[in-house]
Amino acid sequence: MADMLILTEKELRDCVALDAEALSAVEDAFKSLAGGHVVMPPILRLDVEEHHGEIDVKTAYIPGLDSFAVKMSPGFFDNPGKGLSSTNGLMVLFSAHTGLVEAVLLDNGYLTDVRTGLAGAIASRYLARDEVETVGVLGAGSQARYQIEALRLVRDFSRVLVWGRDRMKAEQCATDLSSALGVAATACEHPRDVVRGSMVVVTTTPASEPLINADWLHPGLHITAMGSDAGHKNELDPAIIGACDAFVCDTRAQSALLGELHHAIEAGAVPPDVAVTELGQLITGETQARRGADDITVCDLTGTGAQDTAIARLAFQKAMAASAGTRFES
Amino acid sequence: MADMLILTEKELRDCVALDAEALSAVEDAFKSLAGGHVVMPPILRLDVEEHHGEIDVKTAYIPGLDSFAVKMSPGFFDNPGKGLSSTNGLMVLFSAHTGLVEAVLLDNGYLTDVRTGLAGAIASRYLARDEVETVGVLGAGSQARYQIEALRLVRDFSRVLVWGRDRMKAEQCATDLSSALGVAATACEHPRDVVRGSMVVVTTTPASEPLINADWLHPGLHITAMGSDAGHKNELDPAIIGACDAFVCDTRAQSALLGELHHAIEAGAVPPDVAVTELGQLITGETQARRGADDITVCDLTGTGAQDTAIARLAFQKAMAASAGTRFES
Repeated sequence: MADMLILTEKELRDCVALDAEALSAVEDAFKSLAGGHVVMPPILRLDVEEHHGEIDVKTAYIPGLDSFAVKMSPGFFDNPGKGLSSTNGLMVLFSAHTGLVEAVLLDNGYLTDVRTGLAGAIASRYLARDEVETVGVLGAGSQARYQIEALRLVRDFSRVLVWGRDRMKAEQCATDLSSALGVAATACEHPRDVVRGSMVVVTTTPASEPLINADWLHPGLHITAMGSDAGHKNELDPAIIGACDAFVCDTRAQSALLGELHHAIEAGAVPPDVAVTELGQLITGETQARRGADDITVCDLTGTGAQDTAIARLAFQKAMAASAGTRFES
Repeated sequence: MADMLILTEKELRDCVALDAEALSAVEDAFKSLAGGHVVMPPILRLDVEEHHGEIDVKTAYIPGLDSFAVKMSPGFFDNPGKGLSSTNGLMVLFSAHTGLVEAVLLDNGYLTDVRTGLAGAIASRYLARDEVETVGVLGAGSQARYQIEALRLVRDFSRVLVWGRDRMKAEQCATDLSSALGVAATACEHPRDVVRGSMVVVTTTPASEPLINADWLHPGLHITAMGSDAGHKNELDPAIIGACDAFVCDTRAQSALLGELHHAIEAGAVPPDVAVTELGQLITGETQARRGADDITVCDLTGTGAQDTAIARLAFQKAMAASAGTRFES
């Protein structure tokens, strides 16, 4: 018998936002990952090919913390045609002392959007040049918005360039970002225009062919690639990983399996045993990646269970403090 | 935004029991597994060594069905000292068409107990002799009770032998089974006494050293080993797997990784590529395992996500029909 808290998406949106507190919680998760003591098993993935769907399950236990999350992220790609979001899901927070359920977070993917946006911001915080005037985003979905809004927490840019396969959606995304952030925002014809015109570029697409060509890179550029989270997905020309001055991953293991590193190794752009800096090592100060204003840096984010545990714990703490949610006796 | 059903353990106990309907649901899951079209990824396992805990996540999509479950099973082995059950957990039922959450089943492990007991009954249904007077169980915990109660659905035995490391608990288990089933039940001094005196033996322990010696086998015996669900667990002398007339698994892949097959291969009792019949093949009639009353048969159960999907779907259907549970808008 256990007493637990059920939180709805609305309640979670009231508790957790793209702000400094959440950024700090996610940074702490990456720091722990860099310490090497986090228990983070490989992602469980179930494919429902019949209905163009999949579900990913992620989890991580961060030693010393009194709870951990299991996150279930379904992606069903016929949903938009039914008036539904492609991505949904929930998180369950368990006591790390007893395994009892502490909370069920019915977030429909909101907390994943937030922790993913924040990971992008953290990548830019430690990798982008200090002075950034223009940032760009490839993809015009909800994660494009989260990435650019989170980026604003760490860099004071004044202009956004947006590219999406669907020009109308890119225009809409630019309009939304402009009004949300009070910056100039324009939709571009071609990914090349975004890359050439920006000092930070975030890729947020499910592309399975590279969107950014190594020829378009310019001094000082930082790229965060967050779209690829499966073996067949690929946003960056593998040559970029070989050519850039610093390549950083959220976790080397996942990037080599599901991310841009996977394709770079397959294409022979880097050797299979290439040493890769992990994001957490930049946060702890163990190492530095950008050595000068002209360096070209790349960060590949595949999404980690450690971020899920961090954001779920924050949501639970904030909800408890606000007496939000419904208590359930089970 | 989704409308979903939250069901508590009490509500689930009112909906689902060890009965013919649930048995049939779990049999159907094994039949589907035998068909080879079920999508069932490897179990995700997280260890929380610091607190002697672990969590297993299982799932399976059975093509043609409109929903699938993700099951989270924590096991925290210091819990009994805190007055809590070692095992707990919950299941989440997702639409196979949209990935939206249909129900959260806060069962604290009850549905796992039921589907595991039923799998044991199914193994005996297709493997044990028709006439069985005495059945035995090694282990005296809750699963010992579920196994023997479920066995009653398929064999009309009149006597139960129980062995447990703790003699007092074995006595209590025998008393409980006697009054629940109206049969004679006795606690035994030694596992050997149980095996020699029974025509069906079910092992339900977390043993990491064999409990049953190959020397104790006798003509006609059927053994179901359901305790081992991790690489270090082992209930049967590996020689038994080599010596018996028929060895059957719930799934070959899991048994070779986590079950008795794993130890039999390691010990060289069977070759690594040994062909193994799966339980579902007996149900569909594709193959038969017991060829005569004197055959010695063994079934290894590691527990499958397909069973979880089956029992979660049944629980949801029964709850909907009974208008049980709490609807939640998220």
